[in-house]
Amino acid sequence: MLSPLIEQVIKAISPLDIIIKNKMQKKLDGLVKPPGSLGRLEQLAIQLASISSTTDIQYKQKAILVFAADHGVFHEGVAVTPQNVTAIQAKNMTKGLTGVCALAHVSQSQVIVTDVGIIDTVPISEIHHYKICEGTRNIAQGPAMTIAQAIKAIEVGIKTAQRHIQQGIQLIGVGEIGIANTTAAAAMISVLCHKEADCVVGLGANLPAKQRQHKVNVVNTAIQINRPNPDQPIDILAKLGGLELGAMSGAILAAAALKIPIVLDGFLSYASALIACRLCPHVNAYLIPSHMSTEQGARIALDALGLRPYLDMEMRLGEGSGAALLFPIIDAACAMGEYMGTLSDSAIILPDS
Amino acid sequence: MLSPLIEQVIKAISPLDIIIKNKMQKKLDGLVKPPGSLGRLEQLAIQLASISSTTDIQYKQKAILVFAADHGVFHEGVAVTPQNVTAIQAKNMTKGLTGVCALAHVSQSQVIVTDVGIIDTVPISEIHHYKICEGTRNIAQGPAMTIAQAIKAIEVGIKTAQRHIQQGIQLIGVGEIGIANTTAAAAMISVLCHKEADCVVGLGANLPAKQRQHKVNVVNTAIQINRPNPDQPIDILAKLGGLELGAMSGAILAAAALKIPIVLDGFLSYASALIACRLCPHVNAYLIPSHMSTEQGARIALDALGLRPYLDMEMRLGEGSGAALLFPIIDAACAMGEYMGTLSDSAIILPDS
Repeated sequence: MLSPLIEQVIKAISPLDIIIKNKMQKKLDGLVKPPGSLGRLEQLAIQLASISSTTDIQYKQKAILVFAADHGVFHEGVAVTPQNVTAIQAKNMTKGLTGVCALAHVSQSQVIVTDVGIIDTVPISEIHHYKICEGTRNIAQGPAMTIAQAIKAIEVGIKTAQRHIQQGIQLIGVGEIGIANTTAAAAMISVLCHKEADCVVGLGANLPAKQRQHKVNVVNTAIQINRPNPDQPIDILAKLGGLELGAMSGAILAAAALKIPIVLDGFLSYASALIACRLCPHVNAYLIPSHMSTEQGARIALDALGLRPYLDMEMRLGEGSGAALLFPIIDAACAMGEYMGTLSDSAIILPDS
Repeated sequence: MLSPLIEQVIKAISPLDIIIKNKMQKKLDGLVKPPGSLGRLEQLAIQLASISSTTDIQYKQKAILVFAADHGVFHEGVAVTPQNVTAIQAKNMTKGLTGVCALAHVSQSQVIVTDVGIIDTVPISEIHHYKICEGTRNIAQGPAMTIAQAIKAIEVGIKTAQRHIQQGIQLIGVGEIGIANTTAAAAMISVLCHKEADCVVGLGANLPAKQRQHKVNVVNTAIQINRPNPDQPIDILAKLGGLELGAMSGAILAAAALKIPIVLDGFLSYASALIACRLCPHVNAYLIPSHMSTEQGARIALDALGLRPYLDMEMRLGEGSGAALLFPIIDAACAMGEYMGTLSDSAIILPDS
């Protein structure tokens, strides 16, 4: 059911380097501080070292890969933002005007936007075009896309990540634009995590609370009509998902295969990460959570991924904004080993803890 | 009971600018994103704007003010780190070798260390000397210091903050070094928050769990022997506190008086902030929490301050390390208004939310 490219990428994903993990732990324990006192920042540094196979971690070239596509389910009235905002914001990405672009400035990171399936209202010449089709179909009436399209979406993500990693990107964040895509992601997460739609559906981008029940109904209808196989991630993606969500899954797989750490954003990225992890469980070790999304089902998805975010910002913008906000924390995790002195150089002897 | 300098600083602290607050809210609501979707990052930007009296917030010159002093209560066996580490780490601060120095690199911030009461084992020529005495006395046997010394400690913090702010620092973080100072801070927070010592005392820098009860006993003894007046913050500081904790309180007061935002670190800084807020409740609005300290009483102190941290890192190093880690998030809060486009420029019309 998978394509040769996807099969090949999955085969290249291996468990983390346990020798480097232990070496990094020792290195951090020797720095001039009580062992473990920098807490999860130390754990993050150890994860990064194990992914990058070096205790001298540093990520000078960082990028957020943003995938954009439209959603047929928009026409069920599940979002209050006009549909053409997908195209407008994709264009704004290329001009550095979006939220993620602003936040990426702090760590001097790139934001790279790829069109996987925007309904074109205006031609956008500056954008990378890998358009598979002009948006998905309405999941409340049938499958979002064909299996072939879902595979193509993953492949777009793979190729995009591979190209930028080959060009020197050492760490990626994933992000998306797609009006109505929290409906698709909620449907996917509901099936992937075996939870009622009512537990997973949130308000997305400012849906009035009184319209949430309608969104729940739409998700339930989508699941009942499409009957995705809960054990077949590609089937779930094709029937309930989105082109940009598939592309994010592909980017995650490709980065893991190339030993590049992947920083997640919020709810949408959790859906994509779950698909990638179901396709290849080794992917999990390469994932770095950023912020705790406010979307209702966020906790369910994060628990399924076994991830605990570092940032508590009540953000719900998407675009990869949470990933961009974590990038300086990644720099801080690298800075410990780069700049701190050692206990032995300071002649400090601490008791074993 | 207060000195003329402290009185004068307190008088200069005013409530936040409500007009700028509303202007900043409007500015953020006009940016190209669903209103409020950047959550607490927007709230942080609004707080910063209200403190700095401008909607064009930017903090190019940031510093962590680290105060260092020793504690007589060390001799009760409440800490496992050797006492001379206070002096060693103060020296390491001047060389850029400590944890906070490494993390401050990420946002290119200064770390400025001041000796308020280190027991000198080695002369440290590079450090700012405002030594009041060589460490506090043992709080399990009597008051840590005299009222005059407590006032002097606050004044050292005031003068240090004033000097650096006059030299161009636009945002400060506070930090400390002082082996055994979590015992002093726990005693202060226990009295300030009317909580049993057992709820507040934690493991500090890797105290073995089986020794925690002894630390609780020491704190209880200190409170019983000294009988601080719970309504007199200076009395609490003098009887149970530390010279560096008083200095941090002073720095907080001075920064608030000069409309400079103050980023807290962990448990020790909460104790200092509580003293500052009891001396002048307006201070509270100028405080920015950073990370959720793992020290047992952290939540109690944060609740008393009405603060909710942004970072969940399980850190317990002190030194101002958590403040340094938040500085890039402050930069991100400023970047929204600096770089993002507007809804109107993109011709996006969103429904009222």
